[in-house]
Formats: sequence, structure tokens, C-alpha cells
Amino acid sequence: MKKQYTCGTASVQFEEPVYFESCASVVGKKEGEGPLSDYFDMICKDPMFGSETWEAAESAMQKEAAALAVGKAGLTPKDIRMLFAGDLLAQTTASSFGTAGLEIPFYGLFGACSTMGESLSLGAMCIAGGYGEHILCATSSHFASAEKEFRFPLGYGNQRPLSATWTVTGSGACVLGCNPPSRPLSSDHMPLRDGDSCAVITGITTGKMVDYGLKDSLNMGGCMAPAACDTIYQNLFDFGRSPKDYDAIFTGDLGMVGQKILFDLLNEKGIDIRDRHQDCGLLIYDSDRQDTHCGGSGCGCAASVLTGYILPNIVKGKWKRILFVPTGALLSKVSFNEGDTIPGIAHAIVIEHMKL
Amino acid sequence: MKKQYTCGTASVQFEEPVYFESCASVVGKKEGEGPLSDYFDMICKDPMFGSETWEAAESAMQKEAAALAVGKAGLTPKDIRMLFAGDLLAQTTASSFGTAGLEIPFYGLFGACSTMGESLSLGAMCIAGGYGEHILCATSSHFASAEKEFRFPLGYGNQRPLSATWTVTGSGACVLGCNPPSRPLSSDHMPLRDGDSCAVITGITTGKMVDYGLKDSLNMGGCMAPAACDTIYQNLFDFGRSPKDYDAIFTGDLGMVGQKILFDLLNEKGIDIRDRHQDCGLLIYDSDRQDTHCGGSGCGCAASVLTGYILPNIVKGKWKRILFVPTGALLSKVSFNEGDTIPGIAHAIVIEHMKL
Repeated sequence: MKKQYTCGTASVQFEEPVYFESCASVVGKKEGEGPLSDYFDMICKDPMFGSETWEAAESAMQKEAAALAVGKAGLTPKDIRMLFAGDLLAQTTASSFGTAGLEIPFYGLFGACSTMGESLSLGAMCIAGGYGEHILCATSSHFASAEKEFRFPLGYGNQRPLSATWTVTGSGACVLGCNPPSRPLSSDHMPLRDGDSCAVITGITTGKMVDYGLKDSLNMGGCMAPAACDTIYQNLFDFGRSPKDYDAIFTGDLGMVGQKILFDLLNEKGIDIRDRHQDCGLLIYDSDRQDTHCGGSGCGCAASVLTGYILPNIVKGKWKRILFVPTGALLSKVSFNEGDTIPGIAHAIVIEHMKL
Repeated sequence: MKKQYTCGTASVQFEEPVYFESCASVVGKKEGEGPLSDYFDMICKDPMFGSETWEAAESAMQKEAAALAVGKAGLTPKDIRMLFAGDLLAQTTASSFGTAGLEIPFYGLFGACSTMGESLSLGAMCIAGGYGEHILCATSSHFASAEKEFRFPLGYGNQRPLSATWTVTGSGACVLGCNPPSRPLSSDHMPLRDGDSCAVITGITTGKMVDYGLKDSLNMGGCMAPAACDTIYQNLFDFGRSPKDYDAIFTGDLGMVGQKILFDLLNEKGIDIRDRHQDCGLLIYDSDRQDTHCGGSGCGCAASVLTGYILPNIVKGKWKRILFVPTGALLSKVSFNEGDTIPGIAHAIVIEHMKL
């Protein structure tokens, strides 16, 4: 039988690390006014990103993040073997009219707000499997295209309960590679490397769909927390680790309500991550000042916080090993209106600081 | 540098074959009245599949196909390491409420009608990479949920131009494995094996998005033909093959119009596949008798024809090597209404007859 690289029942531990060659983040005005303002590569004050529709705006933003990441790695789209991308829109059109247009062999994904985890998970397996030297992983969300897709027209000015999150206008893209990022060769060439330090993926845990029967689309943190709990627990179990083996555990967009539920659910399993848990949705906005209620959400939330804030700090050594766990709520307008539940999913990526 | 298994610029050639352990097909009444009637595992006369909405009907059908495939392989869902699935609905809810509920680690895909190619492509890479012993690949489409998603309410009774295709109500699922399917051990255990013969995946070509600027959603064959041409050409180039190296080349759902365009486009590149091309959309219905105009379409078209008709015949030796090329049109209601083009994508899978 073929040698298996599986670990536990839902994880893969890579024999050789998968390198982050580069990463890039592009966000909107509101995100650029938040606490992580200084970390993003590009803050665009025009919510239309120079386009004529909200959907085209999101596509332009996603394409920009992808192009930036490819350029920072010192590559061109022709050097990229595969692209894994997706977004929140019906039939993932932000990606079809965004990064998919780069003429890179393309796998379209739908994992709701867990998409950055899904794309890194598949990208890392493909790099480790020897199916390409450079693989691009990207995703995006846009406040206005998401409101239009899932909720109310913006002009309607609906009220939002405190459990609601604010969809991040943002995109993140990473180039994964089988070789360490090189030293910078020019001012455009900005590989994800600091001296001899870089960031690598050493393992993944694939999420399962978890459905606790919740139906409130204005409390998505609550819908996704059980999936985050399931994946974090599975990761610790599969790798034989405890929370202290991670310097930080980042969920995607649980927000304040979802975070509390996650703590309670993990507590029932005898696991306490309170001293090392952070949520990208809570990091990206100053909720009191920016009136974002429960926090940020959307594929672009975890993606822009990962590429803007988390990865560069791992390279600098702020954290030696983290667990990145973006969470997705698997609903559509139709499933919601037909009274279906909102199942969740979360994919975990083990990211480590490495000295070359 | 890590050993690469890449082949040409967009393909992977596997060192060891990836085995089809089992496959299953479930279709609706109309498909059960077509020329392939005798080949499907299950024909359900109730278009609601015992459910209360069209979306739930599609989910039930997809789950049934997946459960059948897992059972035929002599496995339970717990034995399956990963599931790759997707469908045509917004936010792929047919899969979220279908196979994703099987509690298998899950990667959600969106590749429109190319999804069976996308799922087999990723599933085969993961089996060959040693990331699991058994991987499930599934997809579905349903005439009524697709009409509701993309076109008009059924009760409106709109007229269809002759270039329009008919969305197949059908689902297909395959279990891929790193070991050959065993001999049948009981009446429920129906692995995809005939004596010492089986079917294997030996290579893949990942599709790129191809956009010729067409905007007619009632001529999707025309929109997807350029992508089929691109992927078939790339496959031949990457593997150094000519059409005669394949006993048959099956596209997904180009229909009559798309088939003609594909022949013309390939002809411009000096390639003639007319004597060995078949289209799943043309195989599944008797267009004159069943009033399906240009042919069948939808994720479930290529998937049910592959799992019902193509794979069992490869095992029997009717074809020794084929190229399976499902095609997808990357549009949404919103992108169409905003006047966007309809880009296409096609993923190619090299499937061979093998003697054990």
C-alpha cells in the first residue's frame, strides 16, 4: 500500500514544510481605519475599487491582492501552477471575474468564510505532493456585495442586532512554494522572509460540516462556533497536542458571541484556550468606535488578517507556532428563506516560524 | 527541491494509478426514460425525492448517490478520509445539506458543470499524495432547482431556444482509493471490478478559465466550448499525445451547438477528434423524442453518465483509455443580469482500463 501521510482521522502532517513565499492584503476604507491599519498592503478608499458594480469591485480587489502576492514572490502568473480561490457570492463570481482571469489552472472553492483555510489546506497538500512549485491561494469578501447577496439592499438601512457581524471588505492572497522564499532582490520583490526566518505550513486538519440546528443568520458566530470547536479539538487530538503547544489560536470570524460559545463548548471537552485565542473578526475593527457590533466576518476577514498581520508576525518570531482556523457558515438566501439550519465548517492550518 | 510529478504546464501524471473503488448514479424520471436508462443504479420517479423543496430534493439525491457509492465499496462514511463535492446552487447548498452531512472531512467546490472533473482531479491528487486511503467525489444537479436558480419559475412556462440545454436531474459519486477494488464479498458489496479488470486515473489536466466574451446563458455549449478546446489541447500537449491515444473523449454538456464549436476550434489547431468525441449531454437524452433541444447539462449530467455508463464500460474493456472533460459555465443570475460575459472552465481526467 502507498505510504500514508495522514495523521489521526482528519489531519495531514507534512514530512517537509510548505513555505509561504509571499502574501498580500487589500482592504477597504473602514478596515483601513481599524486597529490593523498599518499592516495592510493596500487600503482603497473607493468602495467600488474603480468598478461599476459591487461584484466587480470585489473581483478587482481580489485580483489586486493576487497580483500583489505573485509580484512580491518575484513571479508572474505564468509561474503559478495552480490557483485555489473562492468567495461568498452565488456561483463564486467574485473569483470567476477576479483571480480566475489570471489564466492560471484554477480550482474554484466554496467554503463560505472558511475559504482561506480551505485554499491553504488544498494548496499545501498539492505543494507537498509535488504537484507544483508555486501555488496561489486567494479569497475575498466585500461588505456591499455580501449585504446584497445575503441580507437587505444597502439603501433599506435595516437595523442590525448586536449579534450581527460586519462583512469585511478585504482580500488576502498567498503564494505557497516547495522552496524557502529567497532574499529580496529588488524593491518590488518582497518575499515573506526576514533575515533567515520564514513562515511554513506543517500540518492541516480538514473540517467537517457541523450543524447544531441554529437558524439565525444574524448570529453567524453562534452557528460557526460548534464547527470551530470540532476542528480545534480534532487538531489537538490528531497531533497529540494541547493548547499550550500553540502560541496562539486564531479563528476567522466568530466575533464576540461566537468566541464565548467556542470557549464554553471547548470547556465541556476539558480544553481551555482562553489565554491564547484570538479572532480575526475581533482584531480587524474597533467595535465600539466603528459600530461593527459583534466583529468582522467574511472570507476577506480571516484572509486579510492572516496576510496582513499574522504571517508577517510569525516571520518576525512573535509566535513560533499558531493554529489558523477560519470558520464558514454554509447558508444561502434560499436555504435561509426555506427555514433550513445554518451548518458551519472550519479548516485548521498549522503555521510555524522557521529558521532557514 | 522536492520531486515534482507535474507533466507539461497544467497536468499531473501519477506514478501509481489511482483506483476507482466504486461508483454510483441516481437520476430522475426523464433521465430514466432516456437511452442510458439501463445503466443507472437508481431512477427516482418522484422529482421531489421525498422532500419538500427542490433544493432538498437535490440534496437527498446527492446523499443517496454518495451513500450508494460508499456502500458498494464495502465501506462506511467513517472509512472515507475526505469528501470533495459541489453543485450549481448558490453557496452550493445542495452539497451542504447533502453529502456534507455525512460527517466526512469536507472540501466544498464550485466548478459549475465541471465539478465532477474538479472533484476527481483533487481527489486523485490527494490519493496519490498519500493523504487518504479512500476519498469520495460527488456532485449533482436538479432540473427544477437549477431553473429556479438561474432562469425562470417553472410555472412561467418560458420558451426555450434550440441552443438551450436541459439540466439533468442526476447525481454521481465515486470512491477513489490507493488500492485496487477487491472482489465482491456480498450482494451489497459491488466494487467497480470485473474479474481482474478495473478502472484507474493515470493523469489530470487542470482547466483554466477561458472567456470568449459570449453572454447568452441559453447557449451555454457555446460559452463552454472554448474551455473544452483549451483543456483538451493542453492535455494532448502536456502528455505528448494525439487524439488517437484516447479511445474516446467525453465532454460534459456541450450539447449539439457546443460540440460543433469544439470541433471547429480544435480544427483551427490542427486537431480532429470527431471520430472519438462523445458528449454526456448528447448521450443522456434522446433529444427528438424527449424534447430536450441541445442536450443535457448540469453537474449531474457528466457525473451520472460517468458513473452509470462510462466507468462500467471501461472496466469491461470497451475503451482502454479515455479522456473525461466536464465543462462548466461560470455565471450567476447576478453576473448575467449585470451584463457580464460567461467564462467557461473544463477539467480533464485520464481514465484507463487496467488488468490487475
